[in-house]
Amino acid sequence: MHATSTPTPSPDRAALVRDLRRFMPAESVLFEAEDLRPYECDGLSAYRELPLVVCLPETVEQVQQVLKLCHERQVPVVARGAGTGLSGGALPLADGVLLSLAKFKRILEIDTENRVARVQPGVCNLAISQAAAPCGLYYAPDPSSQIACTIGGNVAENSGGVHCLKYGLTVHNVLGLKIVTMDGELLELGGKALDTPGYDLLALMTGSEGLLGVIVEVTVKLLPKPERAQVLLAAFDDVAKAGEAVGAIIAAGIIPGGLEMMDNPAIRAAEAFVHAGYPTDAAAILLCELDGANAEVSEQIFQVRELLRACGATEVRSAETEAERQKLWAGRKAAFPAVGRLSPDYYCMDGTIPRFRLPEVLQEIARLSAEYGLPVANVFHAGDGNLHPLILFDANQPGELERTEAFGRQILELCVAVGGTVTGEHGVGVEKLAPMCSQFAAAELAQFHAVKHAFDPAGLLNPGKAVPTLHRCAEFGAMHVHAGRLPFSELERF
Amino acid sequence: MHATSTPTPSPDRAALVRDLRRFMPAESVLFEAEDLRPYECDGLSAYRELPLVVCLPETVEQVQQVLKLCHERQVPVVARGAGTGLSGGALPLADGVLLSLAKFKRILEIDTENRVARVQPGVCNLAISQAAAPCGLYYAPDPSSQIACTIGGNVAENSGGVHCLKYGLTVHNVLGLKIVTMDGELLELGGKALDTPGYDLLALMTGSEGLLGVIVEVTVKLLPKPERAQVLLAAFDDVAKAGEAVGAIIAAGIIPGGLEMMDNPAIRAAEAFVHAGYPTDAAAILLCELDGANAEVSEQIFQVRELLRACGATEVRSAETEAERQKLWAGRKAAFPAVGRLSPDYYCMDGTIPRFRLPEVLQEIARLSAEYGLPVANVFHAGDGNLHPLILFDANQPGELERTEAFGRQILELCVAVGGTVTGEHGVGVEKLAPMCSQFAAAELAQFHAVKHAFDPAGLLNPGKAVPTLHRCAEFGAMHVHAGRLPFSELERF
Repeated sequence: MHATSTPTPSPDRAALVRDLRRFMPAESVLFEAEDLRPYECDGLSAYRELPLVVCLPETVEQVQQVLKLCHERQVPVVARGAGTGLSGGALPLADGVLLSLAKFKRILEIDTENRVARVQPGVCNLAISQAAAPCGLYYAPDPSSQIACTIGGNVAENSGGVHCLKYGLTVHNVLGLKIVTMDGELLELGGKALDTPGYDLLALMTGSEGLLGVIVEVTVKLLPKPERAQVLLAAFDDVAKAGEAVGAIIAAGIIPGGLEMMDNPAIRAAEAFVHAGYPTDAAAILLCELDGANAEVSEQIFQVRELLRACGATEVRSAETEAERQKLWAGRKAAFPAVGRLSPDYYCMDGTIPRFRLPEVLQEIARLSAEYGLPVANVFHAGDGNLHPLILFDANQPGELERTEAFGRQILELCVAVGGTVTGEHGVGVEKLAPMCSQFAAAELAQFHAVKHAFDPAGLLNPGKAVPTLHRCAEFGAMHVHAGRLPFSELERF
Repeated sequence: MHATSTPTPSPDRAALVRDLRRFMPAESVLFEAEDLRPYECDGLSAYRELPLVVCLPETVEQVQQVLKLCHERQVPVVARGAGTGLSGGALPLADGVLLSLAKFKRILEIDTENRVARVQPGVCNLAISQAAAPCGLYYAPDPSSQIACTIGGNVAENSGGVHCLKYGLTVHNVLGLKIVTMDGELLELGGKALDTPGYDLLALMTGSEGLLGVIVEVTVKLLPKPERAQVLLAAFDDVAKAGEAVGAIIAAGIIPGGLEMMDNPAIRAAEAFVHAGYPTDAAAILLCELDGANAEVSEQIFQVRELLRACGATEVRSAETEAERQKLWAGRKAAFPAVGRLSPDYYCMDGTIPRFRLPEVLQEIARLSAEYGLPVANVFHAGDGNLHPLILFDANQPGELERTEAFGRQILELCVAVGGTVTGEHGVGVEKLAPMCSQFAAAELAQFHAVKHAFDPAGLLNPGKAVPTLHRCAEFGAMHVHAGRLPFSELERF
């Protein structure tokens, strides 16, 4: 929807290619339009741009050399993993180098004694768990894209997933990083031991969307596979009741491995797509996975069943085999592409809210959906309060795109107004720059820029992403409505 | 041991006091020597200094005003909580303001729906759990000093504690901070919702030892009190066997609430001090607390008993009542002061190592102890690999202090050489500046300084602490022996 024009070939492309090829094989430096095409966008396909050059380094030294060269020439650089990101974080620049980490796909070490895996950034999320499986271990964060997304991208975006309620986001599961800064320095952050001294640059890098450095190695925590994992499906005739059940489960002191919610449009789409056995007449379903020691899971399954019934579930069933469990999750994990089949286009939102505001926020989204005349399917990590409303629209209908974007903005402002955030796990990228102006005050944005300057003073790494300039915020006309600080009369508007 | 001379009164003390009293009551601005005395050191009493002025602000606005004034006048500022820190992080400066947060002691909110507490930084760690107790909730990190230390200090030092193996360090339990930067700006970092966008300044602030900003509000996660917590005590006739048992428990997929180890000198000291019922003839004891749902704890107690016996425990007993449980922990929590009664002085080390290197590191510490002729008592968070060797010495014996310091340095170099760190939870402060030069390469230290510059370009906040300058590293003659990177022949030396 925001396709940009084909870049005018930069005069120094030839010189750059020549110099890059001094230390990289010719086939690892791409510049022909047909070779650049696969890199023109990430999972946010509405934004497209051909990079000046694509580099595919294979060693840390090559990454250092590419960055040093670009630093000297003042050429901007965008790092890219698998390109599955949903906010345009890996969108190339017409005058910049696209640095693909696709060749960094080795698992360097599975250390069972310390329960860590040391891997290259281009290793696929699921491949880590597969490699650790023979040792009875796995890597916990599981974004829906886990069969494709890479661990380097997960770190850059601080990705979440179905199991993050219990096991934390990427930042809680990464123990060490090696990064290369824009001037080609290699830094080692964290490691296998608990809590290194000095400033926590490891956490700072995690979720920094490629603006502070290029990740060249990742050490992650591995967890023992729980003895048992069982999933319950509960159906509700009212979305608000499902929202209340989420609060009731958490309030009872139970932390499920996953606690996911889908509303009727999402249920029907997923069912039609993967035949997970979902009740297509339900207003909402909850999927609640309990994992741990056998005895504990048995007790919790019993407790959660009771709670779900008390909250008005019309049906509660449990997967009795691993195959049934996988089938129930398959529907949830395929929900985005499934919804994609319902309508020519969809716009995936990603906001978070304090968990107990769920029922009122869902009601307000439904009201806005009617007001804008645009259907919404809701799929989300309910336990975390991480919403993914998918707005269905047709970009070919005049005005629908603009209405969709306005609706999306209102959803994000609603999230901020109830004390939440404008992105839970998909990152800011190019897409959420305007909402960031609502989320943060000028002093906070200024501090972000100061931190960026401490790593990359010339602003060459992934420029124009993640943190809006104060100037852009002024252009957007965005109002800063900070968590809970709006007077009550303002909150009433949402 | 490193007492500094009494400061020469600064010529502008009077002017500073006058200006501070423009916006603070006279009794909140102290400058007479007898009023300054209580602030001359923190828990690391070997370093002492009288500050120029002590300020005791009561409101965020006053903190902002103090910092703005000091920023204008280029007066350095050291923030202080309860002063229980063990690395001299709150050591005052003779030409600086000591900013005490002692009056910030209000619990602002216990939000049971979101399970968070919002508190002022001067609130005592234990007071949070006490306030949350009627709601069945508690705050997990529990430093041994929890009856005295404040949450603001905990955040500044990223404190740990007995239960951090299962529940994480402070950084894993803090959801939001309000901080004031050196130029008086108020920043809000994080909040009640999961994962805010932008750089993770919340994690960056945590453990930054007062160098980046002054904490004026803290939002922490509360956890439901586990249904049951039971502690096992196991005695061993060999320290190495106890170390192996730690590995065996973790390898079995059990994550105890706490897993602590004490060697014979520590056992005897604690027993003589608090009469916890420890077996004083054991070479080492392990305290292993299992917590969670009733059924789970029963199963784990059974499993851990078997594992302890298989690893050669000579005795395994469990606390059968809450009073017995408290008594077993009382010995561990009082271990430092208890050891303090054995000898005129002791030097508390705080290094971490990868857990499975425990037996060999303990053997090497014993060898060094014999070599230096200085006894060591070992008390530590075994599950985390966080060691606290306490070197016993007498500062009045000529040369003993120097020998103790040399011994301590060797212990920390040993930690780094096996892939660990020079401080687990006590911070760097003024005490660990030299070991930081071994821990980090020049590129990493330079990046730390760049981050500091992004918050406090004039270097007025807690200068001279936490991160050594490259110049000082050169002076120390410290060699950088980075985790695992030493050639094997070098490792053999340890």
